[in-house]
Amino acid sequence: MSLLIKGGTIVTHEETFQADILCKDNKIVEIGSISQLPSDVETIDATGKLIMPGGIDPHTHMQLPFMGTVAKDDFASGTAAALAGGTTSIIDFVIPNPQQSLLEAYHQWRGWAEKAHSNYTFHVAITWWDDSVAEEMKVLVDQHGVNSFKHFMAYKNAIMATDDILVSSFTKCLELGAIPTVHAENGELVYHLQNKLLAEGMTGPEAHPLSRPSSVEGEAANRAISIANTLGAPIYLVHVSTEEAVDAIRYAKDHGQTVFGEVLAGHLTVDDSVYQTPDWATAAAHVMSPPFRPQHHQDALWKGVQGGTLQTTATDHCAFCADQKAMGKDNFAQIPNGTAGVEERMMVLWEKGVNEGKITANEFVALTSTNTAKIFNIYPNKGCIRVGADADLVIWNPAAKKTISAKTHHSKIEHSIFEGMEINGVPETTICNGKLAWHNHTLIAKSGEGKYIDRPAYAPFYEALRKRKELNKPVAVAR
Amino acid sequence: MSLLIKGGTIVTHEETFQADILCKDNKIVEIGSISQLPSDVETIDATGKLIMPGGIDPHTHMQLPFMGTVAKDDFASGTAAALAGGTTSIIDFVIPNPQQSLLEAYHQWRGWAEKAHSNYTFHVAITWWDDSVAEEMKVLVDQHGVNSFKHFMAYKNAIMATDDILVSSFTKCLELGAIPTVHAENGELVYHLQNKLLAEGMTGPEAHPLSRPSSVEGEAANRAISIANTLGAPIYLVHVSTEEAVDAIRYAKDHGQTVFGEVLAGHLTVDDSVYQTPDWATAAAHVMSPPFRPQHHQDALWKGVQGGTLQTTATDHCAFCADQKAMGKDNFAQIPNGTAGVEERMMVLWEKGVNEGKITANEFVALTSTNTAKIFNIYPNKGCIRVGADADLVIWNPAAKKTISAKTHHSKIEHSIFEGMEINGVPETTICNGKLAWHNHTLIAKSGEGKYIDRPAYAPFYEALRKRKELNKPVAVAR
Amino acid sequence: MSLLIKGGTIVTHEETFQADILCKDNKIVEIGSISQLPSDVETIDATGKLIMPGGIDPHTHMQLPFMGTVAKDDFASGTAAALAGGTTSIIDFVIPNPQQSLLEAYHQWRGWAEKAHSNYTFHVAITWWDDSVAEEMKVLVDQHGVNSFKHFMAYKNAIMATDDILVSSFTKCLELGAIPTVHAENGELVYHLQNKLLAEGMTGPEAHPLSRPSSVEGEAANRAISIANTLGAPIYLVHVSTEEAVDAIRYAKDHGQTVFGEVLAGHLTVDDSVYQTPDWATAAAHVMSPPFRPQHHQDALWKGVQGGTLQTTATDHCAFCADQKAMGKDNFAQIPNGTAGVEERMMVLWEKGVNEGKITANEFVALTSTNTAKIFNIYPNKGCIRVGADADLVIWNPAAKKTISAKTHHSKIEHSIFEGMEINGVPETTICNGKLAWHNHTLIAKSGEGKYIDRPAYAPFYEALRKRKELNKPVAVAR
Amino acid sequence: MSLLIKGGTIVTHEETFQADILCKDNKIVEIGSISQLPSDVETIDATGKLIMPGGIDPHTHMQLPFMGTVAKDDFASGTAAALAGGTTSIIDFVIPNPQQSLLEAYHQWRGWAEKAHSNYTFHVAITWWDDSVAEEMKVLVDQHGVNSFKHFMAYKNAIMATDDILVSSFTKCLELGAIPTVHAENGELVYHLQNKLLAEGMTGPEAHPLSRPSSVEGEAANRAISIANTLGAPIYLVHVSTEEAVDAIRYAKDHGQTVFGEVLAGHLTVDDSVYQTPDWATAAAHVMSPPFRPQHHQDALWKGVQGGTLQTTATDHCAFCADQKAMGKDNFAQIPNGTAGVEERMMVLWEKGVNEGKITANEFVALTSTNTAKIFNIYPNKGCIRVGADADLVIWNPAAKKTISAKTHHSKIEHSIFEGMEINGVPETTICNGKLAWHNHTLIAKSGEGKYIDRPAYAPFYEALRKRKELNKPVAVAR
Repeated sequence: MSLLIKGGTIVTHEETFQADILCKDNKIVEIGSISQLPSDVETIDATGKLIMPGGIDPHTHMQLPFMGTVAKDDFASGTAAALAGGTTSIIDFVIPNPQQSLLEAYHQWRGWAEKAHSNYTFHVAITWWDDSVAEEMKVLVDQHGVNSFKHFMAYKNAIMATDDILVSSFTKCLELGAIPTVHAENGELVYHLQNKLLAEGMTGPEAHPLSRPSSVEGEAANRAISIANTLGAPIYLVHVSTEEAVDAIRYAKDHGQTVFGEVLAGHLTVDDSVYQTPDWATAAAHVMSPPFRPQHHQDALWKGVQGGTLQTTATDHCAFCADQKAMGKDNFAQIPNGTAGVEERMMVLWEKGVNEGKITANEFVALTSTNTAKIFNIYPNKGCIRVGADADLVIWNPAAKKTISAKTHHSKIEHSIFEGMEINGVPETTICNGKLAWHNHTLIAKSGEGKYIDRPAYAPFYEALRKRKELNKPVAVAR
Repeated sequence: MSLLIKGGTIVTHEETFQADILCKDNKIVEIGSISQLPSDVETIDATGKLIMPGGIDPHTHMQLPFMGTVAKDDFASGTAAALAGGTTSIIDFVIPNPQQSLLEAYHQWRGWAEKAHSNYTFHVAITWWDDSVAEEMKVLVDQHGVNSFKHFMAYKNAIMATDDILVSSFTKCLELGAIPTVHAENGELVYHLQNKLLAEGMTGPEAHPLSRPSSVEGEAANRAISIANTLGAPIYLVHVSTEEAVDAIRYAKDHGQTVFGEVLAGHLTVDDSVYQTPDWATAAAHVMSPPFRPQHHQDALWKGVQGGTLQTTATDHCAFCADQKAMGKDNFAQIPNGTAGVEERMMVLWEKGVNEGKITANEFVALTSTNTAKIFNIYPNKGCIRVGADADLVIWNPAAKKTISAKTHHSKIEHSIFEGMEINGVPETTICNGKLAWHNHTLIAKSGEGKYIDRPAYAPFYEALRKRKELNKPVAVAR
Repeated sequence: MSLLIKGGTIVTHEETFQADILCKDNKIVEIGSISQLPSDVETIDATGKLIMPGGIDPHTHMQLPFMGTVAKDDFASGTAAALAGGTTSIIDFVIPNPQQSLLEAYHQWRGWAEKAHSNYTFHVAITWWDDSVAEEMKVLVDQHGVNSFKHFMAYKNAIMATDDILVSSFTKCLELGAIPTVHAENGELVYHLQNKLLAEGMTGPEAHPLSRPSSVEGEAANRAISIANTLGAPIYLVHVSTEEAVDAIRYAKDHGQTVFGEVLAGHLTVDDSVYQTPDWATAAAHVMSPPFRPQHHQDALWKGVQGGTLQTTATDHCAFCADQKAMGKDNFAQIPNGTAGVEERMMVLWEKGVNEGKITANEFVALTSTNTAKIFNIYPNKGCIRVGADADLVIWNPAAKKTISAKTHHSKIEHSIFEGMEINGVPETTICNGKLAWHNHTLIAKSGEGKYIDRPAYAPFYEALRKRKELNKPVAVAR
Repeated sequence: MSLLIKGGTIVTHEETFQADILCKDNKIVEIGSISQLPSDVETIDATGKLIMPGGIDPHTHMQLPFMGTVAKDDFASGTAAALAGGTTSIIDFVIPNPQQSLLEAYHQWRGWAEKAHSNYTFHVAITWWDDSVAEEMKVLVDQHGVNSFKHFMAYKNAIMATDDILVSSFTKCLELGAIPTVHAENGELVYHLQNKLLAEGMTGPEAHPLSRPSSVEGEAANRAISIANTLGAPIYLVHVSTEEAVDAIRYAKDHGQTVFGEVLAGHLTVDDSVYQTPDWATAAAHVMSPPFRPQHHQDALWKGVQGGTLQTTATDHCAFCADQKAMGKDNFAQIPNGTAGVEERMMVLWEKGVNEGKITANEFVALTSTNTAKIFNIYPNKGCIRVGADADLVIWNPAAKKTISAKTHHSKIEHSIFEGMEINGVPETTICNGKLAWHNHTLIAKSGEGKYIDRPAYAPFYEALRKRKELNKPVAVAR
């Protein structure tokens, strides 16, 4: 069975042109003015619409066990929401408990993900260190298609990676051709501030952002980048939310370092006034880390997007619901951290980015799909519209309108941080692995149809890193 | 007649992969493992070699009438040198005399260029202003495939564009969907310093860089960028040679502005010690504007390249020979400004960029070809290897070595600013318009085979500029 | 007759300590615990109060003839307002008409100023150029105590100084040991935008800020700084109002250049929403150049103050009243540019600076008095509390409160840009030339008692400039 | 007995003027044209010479026990060298062993220092943490005149302060009105790189700088600054040696933070080529941390000095001699870290700063004395020439010449990092506590005549910090 998309305008990260697309067996097999058709073809009319690579969300947490509970969106519901929003692949996180085998955890998550509707793959977190961790990192890279490892610089007494772990793990990543990624917040400062605020009687969600001010993120961002720089490793910063972190990435890039930054749709558009709302549940619904920030950080993030400092957009989708949030009723530090958004990410970026003239439609594609595919080395299979690429596509109607609401979204969460946002330009049809996955407001993909994505080591940016390493070998002075 | 390139490794601005390429009728018609061949095919074995898009030099001056003489390389010899170095297209400059019709000058240059071996197109300079200039700009854009206009901020009492001209012309460019480009040096300061130095008895070429210090370029770069920013126009800075100008571009990009920067192979690799040489002719051979700079500027330029602040590489190829340089024997300000390099550009960037781990081979392609094609809106016909693109290619042998020398180069100039540089990795075969143009150390292309390249207005970056303009329309307060 | 200030706390730019101060014959003659008193001494009890150097406002325009009218505050009323606010000296501007003799204009202004209540001195504007201007600059420096010259980069077709004038005048300043100052706005852009806005029917005061966006100031600031840098001259920027200009000064300082920045109390505290008010007169009352700016510029200005990028605070006091503003009823470009503030400057800076923890009281003194005295080389006679210094003092009551209002201020203008601002900490007594000038809410100084301040050339910062110039002399290469 | 300095030119951090100075009982008692003299006065003729505040070196380590040995210059010889170079006060360091009582260590160091020739005081290092440390910090501030605490971010497994200690100690400093200072190098990275280099067979001193690249310092500088920023504390960075650290300080200052930077005379003038010398002992003699750096860092440090980013100059004088350095013959990581310079600091800064036009003589005074006095709250007793200030002075002969050499210097160390530097302008007479201490090339001061300097808490910069803390108190949302 084949699928023909007829009469649309293809928008890639670098071009816009009219052409039909024929998909077959997961792949794009023809692009152009297609007249000769296979017999069993299904045709979608895309006249007046844009066809773009399916979105890739590089940062989700489906059914994450965290802070004593488990995120409500599992791989089935979470990826259904993704498809409804035009996203055809997610990169989720395997997060081993300290002392747990990485491979064991990896297989655990692989098991959970078997019910996914969309494609998926995993960053693996480094939450502790000994030689066995290093060995399992190698196995994951060599045998399981993992090319990125995550490090939490916050969450002291839980999964925090201290500097010695960062140094060891980044060194191993460099050896394996993988890319280290970091959640950049100084865990000691967070710990100190949480305790101080609680001691002062500040127990509500409004204390959450006070316990994680922007300097806490700026510090950690700079530290991770400097460690990577010292070792000669690449580095990727997840959910950059502050001017300070943008500046740290920019400084590094401007000095020739290989560093990448991700920004969340939420941080681009929601500010910290949400924590001042008198309704506890609403304020708590916005508790995530890093928190939402004062407005000038949003300006800095958009500038970071426009100037090339930030390359990818994500959501950190982690659906903790009202009953779960209530665990922190008397102590903001116990409110499970997380918000949703995997369905809304592309719409939000379209509305606030493309429609406001901040970015072009081509840049939108780069930011929602292509750049992630390149950094995590799955381009041009993903993030791309060309013959031979995977047939993961979204058909976007720039003339359609929609109001975002928890009432109509597909996540299990009962709240939306984008509630009420009016969108001009919406994803109408999502094609995943060459098949209609979302169409006519209906989920068509079946649980389990999503595929695991192997990501090979040594992305193209490694070429220069290796060359520099050779050239910088230490030389003893003859004495 | 078709051309097959067999067994090579294709390197584009974003990918590296093995495939054969079949060219026919100017175009790439097939890429892959090609077994079924047309009857009349010529086959080139590219085993062990890299196939990249032919270079595009966005800044040359063939047979330029300037400072009382005419550059020795005409469009025949200059483009022959280009092909010998892997460059298949040049963007030269039509420079009307003040008060001269733009169209008249354009046709003059078109006539001169008919003997070109490689492809070519033209920026048109705005050297004066009245309504007729504005009208002819429109004709050039609408009817002649011109989408860029050049402004010299230096050369007082000759072709200098003062601020009022910049404002008028940038405004017109914005209206037409064209991109203004600038030679950024403050002409008043240069004029003052030249006179001051001459009055102090400084008449030799060592006075040339003193008359154009880096602050003179930094000032003008920032001014042009600010004017464009104020008007909402895009801007492209040619031959960025200083840390100050890099910083000015970076500042603008980091604030969301659409600005591009070009760097010359010479400025990346040659420093200002050349003006201190006791041999007058050698010192004079290096007289160009902006001049070669102290070393720390080169560091800044490379950082600019690595961090994305500078997107294109050029040469400002303008072959003034020893007898012409001698016109300024008693007065450095009368030494014709210009050096060569159209043949060496790609080799120099390969050696100092790729081989030293500063950039990857993919970035090399972007910097020597693709980015220029995108900015000047001829992508993906140029700067690209894909089915349907123009068959302008270079076959690069990364294992071959060569020493650059005026004795062996193809320009008419008797001097090379890169003399003696050892290159590891050289262009061995150049294909232009689907035909062998340079092969086995021999020029095969014939004079006149080069084609004029039409460049449409409204490059993709214009999308966001137009949107912003709409959103920023002034609104009167009701009173 | 002597004056004793008893029991107060002295606050200088670097210290805070308790001591009595005895003044006699214009001078401070004793500081300490003073028991032996002259017979004819008047004693002021300053218990619980702060004694600081009298303010110096480096930027006022009393009775300025401008845009077809004359500012309403003359040297009598304007300096009375100054004393009421703790300011004991102003630096006003002699602005010759183009082609007018500088000396003639200087004597004109000296005549007008004879009725001043406070001390005063003059920057002299360079509004045109020929050899006679250069000669008169020398006379002013050598014989009339002028050590600063002002350049308007805006006001095309009136007093605008183009680049050639800037180059000539800055060069002359350097030769004379004077400091060039600039009003930094690109006059060509302002002219273009005014015409464009008027052509679009935008005639109201809300068009004023649109005709002078921040990029227009940033451009000119950078240009003036770069020209000074190229020539080796110092530079002082008046009324810095934008993030871009702050960044330009910072960049220069961080590269070792001698550059100073002044900020107005108004730009620090008033934003551009004032132009959106439906009342024409109120909007017009805020028309000054540079205009009030969006909030983020105020943040940048405060950061500039805190980090040392901006050293002085001023007002640009130029009292155009409602009837005068009405001249631009149908054309915003004809609204006389100017607002008042010479009385409120110190209070505003105290409230928004010291009381909000942005600056210390010592920094307040530096910003309102000492730094100006140093830059314009009248320190330690002015800007200082020590034996031998001029007895220009203000006694500040940190516990007193006041609400700023046009109803109670001493300028002739009927509007205050600070209307309604509540001040905690007010100047209660002003001592000028050793005598009570303002006390018990009453002006005591008499018109004509203010003294002209001679300002010698070659301020201390010139030492390094001269050394650098010597070291950088061009040297010919022996050939 | 009194001392009269006759006919000299006084140079302070803000002025230059001719006057005589009379000293009596440790103090300056008169400044001016002094004719009436006490009977027992000794007169020094300073005609043609400059009189400046005695230097304060804020960073020395006399007889430091470190890395298994003890620095050879004790408080007697070290302060003799200081006086010979015009430095009248040093701030040394009490460095408790981990688990050692701060007070016990403090008294130990006080005992050692009793033989000092010059004045002295102590920073106290925080090398471990528990409640008793916090309590002893309070005792030191309240009862012993300590207002600064030092934190080593390097030296893992020895005295390294990890983030939790930094957070606790900075918080305590803020509570006490003291200032935290840091040695900024990331200890985990240094540890990793040392082990890696040793494993690769790199055992010589050339490995020392490779084990501590500039990014290691930049990281730690930014971390300490960010932690201080988060907590609202001031911060002082000792021995800033890299562009990255300068940039980190600048960034913080430009964002309104209270941060200070110190630079060593050695880092300003010596580059890392010293580690490449074939003579092991010479290379080892330069082993200190942070190490000497590539030239561009020196440029950045000078810019930092000129632009106000760095305020103080020091030496880190720690005299480890050849026999001690030999302990690391087979392992660079065991070479005791330290170089000398307390005698040469002011001469080096005069020659390379004042004579090269980088700074003025007034700025020289600020950088060598006044700024340190202000930051550590001993101004205006120290760092100042005025009636009532301590009579610590240096008489400088700008016309005298000298060549620095270990053969003639007064430290016990047999090597000078400034060997052979020619100085134009030398300290000829040093006056300490009102008495001749160094004169006619002879040490006159006696061991034990140096006085301990009490430094009160709450330096003036604390005013704004306290105000901000009040204004930023967290407020709970009413729910």
